[in-house]
Amino acid sequence: MSLEKFAVHTITTKPWSLDECIENYARQGFGGISVWRDTLVGRDPAAAGRKIADAGLSLVSLVRGGFFTAADPAARKAAIEENRAVLREAAALGAPAVVLVCGATPGQLPLENIAQIEEGIEALLPEVERTGVRLSIEPLHPMYAADRSAIVSLRDANALAATIDHPLVGIAMDVFHVWWESDLECQIQRCAEAGRLHAYHICDFKPAFSDPLNDRGLMGEGVIPLRTIDDWMQAAGFNGLAEVEIFSHQWWACDQHEYLQKIAAACRSIYQEQA
Amino acid sequence: MSLEKFAVHTITTKPWSLDECIENYARQGFGGISVWRDTLVGRDPAAAGRKIADAGLSLVSLVRGGFFTAADPAARKAAIEENRAVLREAAALGAPAVVLVCGATPGQLPLENIAQIEEGIEALLPEVERTGVRLSIEPLHPMYAADRSAIVSLRDANALAATIDHPLVGIAMDVFHVWWESDLECQIQRCAEAGRLHAYHICDFKPAFSDPLNDRGLMGEGVIPLRTIDDWMQAAGFNGLAEVEIFSHQWWACDQHEYLQKIAAACRSIYQEQA
Repeated sequence: MSLEKFAVHTITTKPWSLDECIENYARQGFGGISVWRDTLVGRDPAAAGRKIADAGLSLVSLVRGGFFTAADPAARKAAIEENRAVLREAAALGAPAVVLVCGATPGQLPLENIAQIEEGIEALLPEVERTGVRLSIEPLHPMYAADRSAIVSLRDANALAATIDHPLVGIAMDVFHVWWESDLECQIQRCAEAGRLHAYHICDFKPAFSDPLNDRGLMGEGVIPLRTIDDWMQAAGFNGLAEVEIFSHQWWACDQHEYLQKIAAACRSIYQEQA
Repeated sequence: MSLEKFAVHTITTKPWSLDECIENYARQGFGGISVWRDTLVGRDPAAAGRKIADAGLSLVSLVRGGFFTAADPAARKAAIEENRAVLREAAALGAPAVVLVCGATPGQLPLENIAQIEEGIEALLPEVERTGVRLSIEPLHPMYAADRSAIVSLRDANALAATIDHPLVGIAMDVFHVWWESDLECQIQRCAEAGRLHAYHICDFKPAFSDPLNDRGLMGEGVIPLRTIDDWMQAAGFNGLAEVEIFSHQWWACDQHEYLQKIAAACRSIYQEQA
């Protein structure tokens, strides 16, 4: 089975530089890459974008913008300005979309955070239109509701995107964050029917995780019904790449070449009939 | 401020026997107790219930029943039988309600688990009616969706209770599990208006927890908007006890008398204006 329908996030192989990611993902046969901003520090994004294209990789997203919430209005304004810079960086890189981790501020209620997120995204719309770069709201798992995102379900993300209702604002759906939703199939359909199903991230959820952030599983190591969710994505008409995004101290400590081969094997074994 | 409107779960002071819990909670001035089944092993529940009443403590719930899901039908049938025994134990103890942790089985989809949970609860209704003991569905945080409960929001719990629609089946709302829900205020109102708001558990959520299960916070140690949620509970007409339920290796390792005083102080400082 070909790996052309799979992309890898640079954070997945965090010990590697962007050049190493590009070279190794392409050699392994992956179809695409999503670039985390830390790998671009000190680099010309346009040159990095050309290098990705020359390697034959599709560039899915720049990761990540967002973090719109703050008690202090000046901090919220600064966050919006930072996101404008992210959009310009994405445009220079040639990334069609920016993934948004929307933010949450301890001490604020979920609805207060959500109102600030909506305000932040709406303030970006002129820059979105100018650059043509899409914004992809990524709902996060509720265990991050206090300090990373008040958008904690695909249901929430669909509601927010419907409120903003802009053709360049959609959703990045990560199975880690939303697999537990009882109406997930319906929410995927709803998202796709509205033309907002921008991106699809895969990894796995290990119930006895050792770290709330950096102990995510390689596909197959956990409990997410990956194949069923993939069937729902295909049925909803999603035809983009499935992006492997795994935060894992354990995997980052391993040989990254061997790890990338395990990722490739997991993609093949779990999703093989979709080839 | 009086502690009469607060109860403590025996699991909160896990190192103590039931007798120690009863004696110390009453001496500290708490109004009630919820009893975990492990403290009843080898005891006559009726005698334990008399001891609780003699100490002047209200008995809120027996904790816990549930775990209705399994791939094997024989295991599901055994779980229902076990829950009948829990109901009889609650009746003997004099507990007006049993808290249900509903269950989830890895490999089953959320909707498959939910169907088995509904089937399990409905099978118990004759025993519920015979004993007069209520069942209180406790939604758990989505980080337990794989193996502890497919009911992972107050929204889910309200929907399940509405489907079952029995006057003795309601909900135990624990702030740890549902504080992140964007429409929590509405779901609390909906639950109360249906006459299903049985119980109210309090503790706190620490975003950088060290253990998914046993690193919960004492009220004030974390990020839950405890006072706001309490206002919503009062506005919805809840007039039962707020039950302190904390799983914490860290607190269990401390002197339990000092810990109970910290719990009392947290109740007083956080909820003082409701006295």
